[in-house]
Amino acid sequence: MSHRPSLAVIGLGLIGGSLARALRVAGAVSRISGYDPDQLQRRLAVDLGVVDLAADSAAEAVRAADLVVLAVPVLRTAEAMAAVLPALKAGAIVTDVGSTKQSVLADVARTCGELPSWFVAAHPIAGTEKSGVAASNAELFRNKRLILTPHPRQDPAAFATVRALWEAVGARVVEMDAARHDAIFAATSHLPHVLAYAFVNMLSRLDGEAEIFANAGGGFRDFTRIASSSPQMWHDIVRANRESVSGLLEQQIVELQELLALMRAEHWDELKARFQRARDARERHLSHIE
Amino acid sequence: MSHRPSLAVIGLGLIGGSLARALRVAGAVSRISGYDPDQLQRRLAVDLGVVDLAADSAAEAVRAADLVVLAVPVLRTAEAMAAVLPALKAGAIVTDVGSTKQSVLADVARTCGELPSWFVAAHPIAGTEKSGVAASNAELFRNKRLILTPHPRQDPAAFATVRALWEAVGARVVEMDAARHDAIFAATSHLPHVLAYAFVNMLSRLDGEAEIFANAGGGFRDFTRIASSSPQMWHDIVRANRESVSGLLEQQIVELQELLALMRAEHWDELKARFQRARDARERHLSHIE
Repeated sequence: MSHRPSLAVIGLGLIGGSLARALRVAGAVSRISGYDPDQLQRRLAVDLGVVDLAADSAAEAVRAADLVVLAVPVLRTAEAMAAVLPALKAGAIVTDVGSTKQSVLADVARTCGELPSWFVAAHPIAGTEKSGVAASNAELFRNKRLILTPHPRQDPAAFATVRALWEAVGARVVEMDAARHDAIFAATSHLPHVLAYAFVNMLSRLDGEAEIFANAGGGFRDFTRIASSSPQMWHDIVRANRESVSGLLEQQIVELQELLALMRAEHWDELKARFQRARDARERHLSHIE
Repeated sequence: MSHRPSLAVIGLGLIGGSLARALRVAGAVSRISGYDPDQLQRRLAVDLGVVDLAADSAAEAVRAADLVVLAVPVLRTAEAMAAVLPALKAGAIVTDVGSTKQSVLADVARTCGELPSWFVAAHPIAGTEKSGVAASNAELFRNKRLILTPHPRQDPAAFATVRALWEAVGARVVEMDAARHDAIFAATSHLPHVLAYAFVNMLSRLDGEAEIFANAGGGFRDFTRIASSSPQMWHDIVRANRESVSGLLEQQIVELQELLALMRAEHWDELKARFQRARDARERHLSHIE
């Protein structure tokens, strides 16, 4: 597109709201419309200046848009695509921000009959345990990774447009196969959320729960931070990526069973060697993650 | 003691070094001597002004001290106490900073024949994944909890002196039974370290390890931060508190097995309910931990 595209954001949450704000600050889009099933988010998005117009339906929001961003929970992708499909302008590009990519591509293909050339699958590696448009900010994606998972029927121009928009908001764009994406993020993001939820859940059932939490320190706070994330969103992600997540969870259980056996057998040197290997691995890769 | 006590710190690491700095800044002690088996830490402690004198042995360090702090790994408590015992000044108070309290009390009792009235068991809830005297700072304990676990043979004056010193460096002092302390910190601190080490260890064995770590985000960074902690120190703590830690680890494995079974059986509503319960528990207690 040679002119600044008009934008529609379906799903006015942390990610959708932040992308709208960031693209506006970057001057990369013209008019911004939006839709969210939650009336409060719609009203907040207008009041906070995140969108110019909050439409009463997804179809209405996209009618005039050159670029449509589906920023909905991953399990709502098919529903959102079905809602906008009949109303899309000719030549419109549709993209998403979902944390799982194989399920998104499959849902879009199913909804549209086949994968449309104008659909571009994307995943920004950003976000916090907060949610909702009130938490959105224009700087959320700066210097963060943005994964694009190209598909065989991809239109190169549509792909280039989406890449340029993310670069405009400061993201570092990386291309990756969708299956590889899902395996990697099961390991670095999806499984950690399951583990953090499981840990806090176990603690909450112990006697003297309140005294236990009252004695938590900084290490505990950081370790459990992701357990404050949206249960609905992470349910969706784990469900959409269940093969990768459950496979890794099984490996994690085996690792923990081995550590428990080492403690019971008092094989302390081997336990320490495992701690050391973990520390070495984290330190070796620290430059990438801090 | 009516005059400002002279201090000896055995173990010039993050905690021992920070306590020495903090007590000096607070004007709560006079001369500070120290000992560490690592010559580099001894030299750094002098060069950084953490201690006035680094002695060549623990016995030499304590000879003139009114107050002795054992800031050694918990499994070195007996050894440190044995080293200082023959050299202690009459009326000297000895205290510690260990993360486990039943093992420390047992080791001190064994080394001294019985629990001495002049020994006060303490545990500051502070520290980072960093270690060594170079990382020490005078503000480490400000507004942090400090647990004292009194024992039946405790001298009230010795206990009051140690309490006052920690209050002087800004800590919030709490008293607790040693067994209860160990159960609580197994849950909030010791088990999380085991879980974080186990998680990073599992990841480090996956194919494409480097690409996986390269795609880690902020949630991963926080979740795994404690896996950069000292393997030796956490080996010691887990070993010293093995009953509590292994009992909780067993419960954690059961929780994870249940989550895996829910995923395999596609019982998504129940999985989401567990995520929700964890989030609710963390949010309910958030005011205590953030």
